[in-house]
Amino acid sequence: MLQEFVSSPHPAPGPELSARLAQRRKQLSGQLQRIKAAKLPVLVLFEGWGGAGKGRLINRTIQQIDPRFFKVHSMAVPTGEDRRKPFLWRYFNVIPEAGKFVFLDSGWLDETVRARLEGRLDDDEYAARLESLNTFERQLAAGGYLLVKIFLQIDRDEQKSRLEALAADKDTAWRVDEYDAWQSRHYKKCFAAYDSALETTNTAYAPWQIIDAAHKKRAELAVCTLLTDAIEAALAQRPGKGLIAQRQFALRPMPLLADVPLDKSLTEKEYDETLKKLQAHLGELHNRLYRKKVPVVIGYEGWDAAGKGGNIKRLTAALDPRGYEVIPIASPEPHELARHYLWRFWRALPKTGHIAIFDRTWYGRVMVERLEGFCTESDWKRAYNEINEFEKELTDWGAVVLKFWVQIDKDTQLARFTERQNTPEKQWKITDEDWRNREKWDAYEQAVNEMLQKTSTLNAPWHIIESVDKKYARVKALTIVTEALEEALR
Amino acid sequence: MLQEFVSSPHPAPGPELSARLAQRRKQLSGQLQRIKAAKLPVLVLFEGWGGAGKGRLINRTIQQIDPRFFKVHSMAVPTGEDRRKPFLWRYFNVIPEAGKFVFLDSGWLDETVRARLEGRLDDDEYAARLESLNTFERQLAAGGYLLVKIFLQIDRDEQKSRLEALAADKDTAWRVDEYDAWQSRHYKKCFAAYDSALETTNTAYAPWQIIDAAHKKRAELAVCTLLTDAIEAALAQRPGKGLIAQRQFALRPMPLLADVPLDKSLTEKEYDETLKKLQAHLGELHNRLYRKKVPVVIGYEGWDAAGKGGNIKRLTAALDPRGYEVIPIASPEPHELARHYLWRFWRALPKTGHIAIFDRTWYGRVMVERLEGFCTESDWKRAYNEINEFEKELTDWGAVVLKFWVQIDKDTQLARFTERQNTPEKQWKITDEDWRNREKWDAYEQAVNEMLQKTSTLNAPWHIIESVDKKYARVKALTIVTEALEEALR
Repeated sequence: MLQEFVSSPHPAPGPELSARLAQRRKQLSGQLQRIKAAKLPVLVLFEGWGGAGKGRLINRTIQQIDPRFFKVHSMAVPTGEDRRKPFLWRYFNVIPEAGKFVFLDSGWLDETVRARLEGRLDDDEYAARLESLNTFERQLAAGGYLLVKIFLQIDRDEQKSRLEALAADKDTAWRVDEYDAWQSRHYKKCFAAYDSALETTNTAYAPWQIIDAAHKKRAELAVCTLLTDAIEAALAQRPGKGLIAQRQFALRPMPLLADVPLDKSLTEKEYDETLKKLQAHLGELHNRLYRKKVPVVIGYEGWDAAGKGGNIKRLTAALDPRGYEVIPIASPEPHELARHYLWRFWRALPKTGHIAIFDRTWYGRVMVERLEGFCTESDWKRAYNEINEFEKELTDWGAVVLKFWVQIDKDTQLARFTERQNTPEKQWKITDEDWRNREKWDAYEQAVNEMLQKTSTLNAPWHIIESVDKKYARVKALTIVTEALEEALR
Repeated sequence: MLQEFVSSPHPAPGPELSARLAQRRKQLSGQLQRIKAAKLPVLVLFEGWGGAGKGRLINRTIQQIDPRFFKVHSMAVPTGEDRRKPFLWRYFNVIPEAGKFVFLDSGWLDETVRARLEGRLDDDEYAARLESLNTFERQLAAGGYLLVKIFLQIDRDEQKSRLEALAADKDTAWRVDEYDAWQSRHYKKCFAAYDSALETTNTAYAPWQIIDAAHKKRAELAVCTLLTDAIEAALAQRPGKGLIAQRQFALRPMPLLADVPLDKSLTEKEYDETLKKLQAHLGELHNRLYRKKVPVVIGYEGWDAAGKGGNIKRLTAALDPRGYEVIPIASPEPHELARHYLWRFWRALPKTGHIAIFDRTWYGRVMVERLEGFCTESDWKRAYNEINEFEKELTDWGAVVLKFWVQIDKDTQLARFTERQNTPEKQWKITDEDWRNREKWDAYEQAVNEMLQKTSTLNAPWHIIESVDKKYARVKALTIVTEALEEALR
């Protein structure tokens, strides 16, 4: 894309330029209330050459925006903490909430191109990385996010003289880091790398805007113009609806829930012996995966009263609390509802070497949110693939991803509900909502079947845990976990 | 305190011990619903010797607790990010929300003793650190938090043999770090250091519990016993109420608002010239404080329509967006309300070298929350001192703390409200609430006067910014900021 970019001659900043800029600034200020009313989240990514003036242009832009409506994040270099999470984690973390702006001072383009140039990504990894980026951007766009991606272009001579000027002043010298200097010396090589990455990530739903940054005021006008135009277009028609998912996933065949025999059980003695052995083994494996820095994500879904809690307890009893976390998922809070539905799960991902156990998961999107009408039909239909993509990010990162559907039949649930109701110290576990959900059993069963069919990918398959006999269920889940960890540690 | 501790002989774990443990575990499970109903936040700090079994004891304890009710945080060593915030930041960050537990796997005691032993705190710094800890714990206790502080004691031989056993197994060898090994070699010196720190931080509102950790099952019973007893006592009578603030602060005399002349103004020409100069100067200073890693916290309070927003804008226009953030403070969200009122401000603190500008601040506690009855009288009365303590932490950390009260008179406010009402593109800025607040002008004025008198400390004084003429107000605020930064950089 940079190949075709031709820097235009720079007229002196005349009164006409100033007038147009003033008009665009006013337009931007005027759009704020409409962005808020439309709950439009706007993510503005500034990329470009070192010394191109990203900071300055961001600051000029945000002067038009009330501080309640934006945040700026400098994403330059990932921290040690960031490096123990999947690549996309720190970007998902900072996406704007509905009705607000986030400005990123460089981001995923720069991080990727730099890793490529420094030889930290081979051909396959680089291609996979770019595909991840396109998926990430498509998910945001499909979720109603406006993405504005700006690349600030300056030529070799311009960059050189700017960096020299910064370095000459002791108060600004710190802004020129080794990478900037290296970039300047290898401009041509960097140009080719940027060009290829821009090309591959230039999509209909999130196109790149290359801006000539050689002339500061004209660049400011260009940024302000494209931002206001993009907002206007997005407000006229919310973007991204009807985007077609592009990744295909190989799926494992799954039985229908109705066909799963539930008569499996263990004697007390079998249970005690096997459980003890499995827990001891899991404790060892936990130590080993901590040392090898393998992250583990375990998701539990299942009917109310199926025995998820007790199952999780038998799993965690063997683990060191410094290396695992159980994350109970309740209804989203307001600040979570205000963002992409996967945001709160991205945020909760474990560090490498740690285990995160989700008690209910992102699959709420295609179960409760689908059935209770908390999202639109196109939202939950799109979610199957988005979730597969999300889990693919995790397994590509090196995580072991295990998903358990804890299964019981309707009669067993009734018996357990009744017992809870009749036992004083268990009454808190049963609510009116549980009874209401029970009434919708058939609709849920249909949704669960569809979910199991569509999201049991080879990299992150579902496991059905028959839990009429809880002992059997616990031993089965523990066995699957230990075997998966063994496999990952091999 | 360790001096007086005598390890008792270890009886074999008999059936009586098991029975008592089972009973206490059941009691703990049974307390959960009452903790939730009483909205009691419980912070359990596990400290003690390397190898004493903190992880194991935490894991045994949390097995009794539903994952929805607790989080475990390993606080062992601060990260690079942590080190760019005040010492207490990472602890304030992880305090539990109402009705939930947080378990800390070592924390402020260990961090402090270690820093002392490694020579990173001189006598004065060490004394100041311990005082900060006591203040922190008192603030939590006064805010209704139950603090359970446990120190796991083992003697020299026991520690030695435990560390050797861990080191001998390649899967657990990583658990023994250099510091553990060092501690073992210098047991006596460490003992004295722990003893002194425990002594100084052993307070009525947050006493230490020293537990003999030599015998694992007995230690488990001891932990479970003291935790259940502490919870029982806290549920019977919420702790901490009526605690007396202990730090005294030297205060600057402040005029009453009614005595502040508001006739100051600047001509357009004076304004343009001075503003330009000040902004250029501020830009340079920003670079310098970034290099010297000086953190800056600026708080804006003032009447509605006093001109805070425009004032902040003139300040930020000169700054690099990578080094500052404007933090607009609105009504707290549910997850914020569920924690100590200072929590959201602690979380928002800048890194060293960065500037955080708060548009409204923690002083809401003694203004809107006081007047609207969102907290009790004892809450807001205690808050003056708690806020002074909070700001003292910031200035001790090396931050420049500036607080602006942007002042106008009642007639000016009316004129501005009316103008907003009559100008279509400004109408969103004026709400019914603004008019309602205006009716309470006199009560607010009294509260503001009291606030200015009680919190204008020498280390973090208030500045009154006369803002009937907004030009004058902007130049005054900018002048104060640049002078304070000059001073800090000297």
